[in-house]
Amino acid sequence: MLKLYFSPGSCALAAHIALEEAGATYEAVRLNFAQDEQRKPAYLNVNPKGRVPALVTDQGIITENPAILAYVAQSFPAAKLAPVNDPFAFARVQAFTSYLCSTVHVAHAHRRRAYRWADDPAAIEAMQKKVPQSVGDAYALIEDGMLAGPWVMGETYTICDPYLFTVSGWLAGDGVDLTKLPRVMEHNKRMSERPAVKRAIAQQSAAA
Amino acid sequence: MLKLYFSPGSCALAAHIALEEAGATYEAVRLNFAQDEQRKPAYLNVNPKGRVPALVTDQGIITENPAILAYVAQSFPAAKLAPVNDPFAFARVQAFTSYLCSTVHVAHAHRRRAYRWADDPAAIEAMQKKVPQSVGDAYALIEDGMLAGPWVMGETYTICDPYLFTVSGWLAGDGVDLTKLPRVMEHNKRMSERPAVKRAIAQQSAAA
Repeated sequence: MLKLYFSPGSCALAAHIALEEAGATYEAVRLNFAQDEQRKPAYLNVNPKGRVPALVTDQGIITENPAILAYVAQSFPAAKLAPVNDPFAFARVQAFTSYLCSTVHVAHAHRRRAYRWADDPAAIEAMQKKVPQSVGDAYALIEDGMLAGPWVMGETYTICDPYLFTVSGWLAGDGVDLTKLPRVMEHNKRMSERPAVKRAIAQQSAAA
Repeated sequence: MLKLYFSPGSCALAAHIALEEAGATYEAVRLNFAQDEQRKPAYLNVNPKGRVPALVTDQGIITENPAILAYVAQSFPAAKLAPVNDPFAFARVQAFTSYLCSTVHVAHAHRRRAYRWADDPAAIEAMQKKVPQSVGDAYALIEDGMLAGPWVMGETYTICDPYLFTVSGWLAGDGVDLTKLPRVMEHNKRMSERPAVKRAIAQQSAAA
């Protein structure tokens, strides 16, 4: 059976929602970040990076959201979560998930994980200060072009949607002016009404 | 015909090598970063992010290395550049390309693109100072586990290899102690001997 490691509030929610949308049978296991469980040997054996999500499968462990999301889409084709057999359409999906992991999530991470990239407290403060701008700029491209609507890829719901929903949940905390992102906010609301999204959130809340 | 936008020395080399390995018919178009061509309207029409690589196809434009690499693998199946029809094996490939784009490349980018995440010159200096450590730590996981050898995924050459070759070419400039990464360095040498790699590098040099 699949086993998903997550921490509430983390990007693992995207994978969690995808598993729900796919109708997968899985176990969700909470890591307690406040107790640094993600950096303890038991979990480093699962994911040496000390991050979530990690998905344990019968064949081995998969890390990184874009990889897990594509895996779920490909493993549960009936759910039609990505056009995996159409190279161009699939590449568009993957370009979006790549952008979220390498640009959007990274900009956001400079607020609470800035220590990854500098030691000096003043530098960390300077990084935190720029987060509303850098995250806001990254979302402007989503608002003005990438988000076709009503779903990210247009009429068809894909793995891009739970991932955008998850990271856009951090916008308010990042100090971004939400009034400049009406389409992203509508997408967030549309997502929050999906039963699979409600189920994943309820599971994470129950485990917290 | 495919058209690849690149800048010499950038991560676009990974996509360039993959196109050569695939035997694709394509045109490689150089952007002059010194003249800021990547931020001018003509290119922003191609890629609003102002980054490379971007791959123009008959169906539209693809950005982000992981997406382009998977597209090339899927579009040229005879080259066997990724196990696209095996969800788990493909997920392992994608976990690696995701790690390179979201962790390795990002750590590296704090040397010359730190202005993305802070404005204060002292903060930018503090970020640059940590690059040897943050990039070195990211590569330690590759050296000690992810790089199966002789290729990233083991006996089979995949899209992971040109991507690792490309970003590991930045290690010396990032001030990382290369003696701690003998397997990464051997991989780099092994890659540099492949005809497709030589051809891509020669094309980029000729265009510079």
